[in-house]
Amino acid sequence: MSFSPLINELIDALRCLPGVGPKSAQRMAMHLLERDRKGASRLSVVLQDAVEGVGRCEQCRTLCETPTCSICSNSARLRNQICVVETPSDVMAIEQAGGYRGLYFVLMGHLSPIDGIGPAEIGLDQLTRRLDEESFEEVILATNPTVEGEATAHYIANQVQRRGIQVSRIAHGVPLGGELEFVDGGTLAHAFRGRTLVGN
Amino acid sequence: MSFSPLINELIDALRCLPGVGPKSAQRMAMHLLERDRKGASRLSVVLQDAVEGVGRCEQCRTLCETPTCSICSNSARLRNQICVVETPSDVMAIEQAGGYRGLYFVLMGHLSPIDGIGPAEIGLDQLTRRLDEESFEEVILATNPTVEGEATAHYIANQVQRRGIQVSRIAHGVPLGGELEFVDGGTLAHAFRGRTLVGN
Ligand SMILES: [Zn+2]
Ligand SMILES: [Zn+2]
Repeated sequence: MSFSPLINELIDALRCLPGVGPKSAQRMAMHLLERDRKGASRLSVVLQDAVEGVGRCEQCRTLCETPTCSICSNSARLRNQICVVETPSDVMAIEQAGGYRGLYFVLMGHLSPIDGIGPAEIGLDQLTRRLDEESFEEVILATNPTVEGEATAHYIANQVQRRGIQVSRIAHGVPLGGELEFVDGGTLAHAFRGRTLVGN
Repeated sequence: MSFSPLINELIDALRCLPGVGPKSAQRMAMHLLERDRKGASRLSVVLQDAVEGVGRCEQCRTLCETPTCSICSNSARLRNQICVVETPSDVMAIEQAGGYRGLYFVLMGHLSPIDGIGPAEIGLDQLTRRLDEESFEEVILATNPTVEGEATAHYIANQVQRRGIQVSRIAHGVPLGGELEFVDGGTLAHAFRGRTLVGN
């Protein structure tokens, strides 16, 4: 015994959302069909628009729907600093904390050899090309303070130092094992100010 | 500072889902765009199909995409018992518990005068018409054991008794204040067996 085919399919399709199990998917499907069909239609349209329209910034790899994102194309940003983060949400968290005026580079993940994610998969060839071609004076490593984030930061630090460019790591004012995007703005701003030079 | 317009719109549209706040909506949007665009496209299509295709059963009011649902159109179901529930999920819960072979009537809610939800809004005119026209011997009230569910059951019991039809209420093996669809099958089946006649 189950719901009618279309409803079952909707429940199943909702499970592509992170953290949504069978029971919440059923609750969501019922809510949308019983009480918010307008919201469901809008979500349908926006989902498809986003899937078709959102790509990656050619310069920093963040998600955006224009060739170059609003930060990379902002002439007021400092061009001698680049901050390396794991995700677009990390860029947002740092921007909301305020205080940083340089550029970003978004890995869209971290090194994870077990999952087949090596330097190329997180765009490090593109990052080193930029380091060679542009005139950065400092690379700020703001990957998450997790085992993988630290390993990724360590790997990038080596690549940067080999080019004689200064590398720094944001201070660990955030709890180890935590995720950058969930840290409050004050702590993040503090971590930026307290960054330490790597290997000097 | 925020994400690009399309991404912001996606985050906002995801908030039509129950229990999804700004942070989870952001996490969902990032997950879909970074790691599951196929799932997002499928969800978009299925959402629209469901919004356009799913209506209500002409006989029991449950959500389905055919004029009459699979239970109402099943000739093996007993036509002398009708079980009144608040939602389609309650029908599923009772069916999964097993043991009940009669029909259903789905209120799609409960009486709530404060919110302007009176007898007409939960289809009670349709229910009483069926009581007059068909030959039911028993109406089983399986609304939730909440204040509103009890009040709704009480109201319906009066309507049924006035017609000389037997009314029963499922036994409260479920915790008061709980919701029917989250009760385990064993408890629900027990509650069905232990139902008591109303007002006799
Ligand atoms: Zn960019
Ligand atoms: Zn039906």
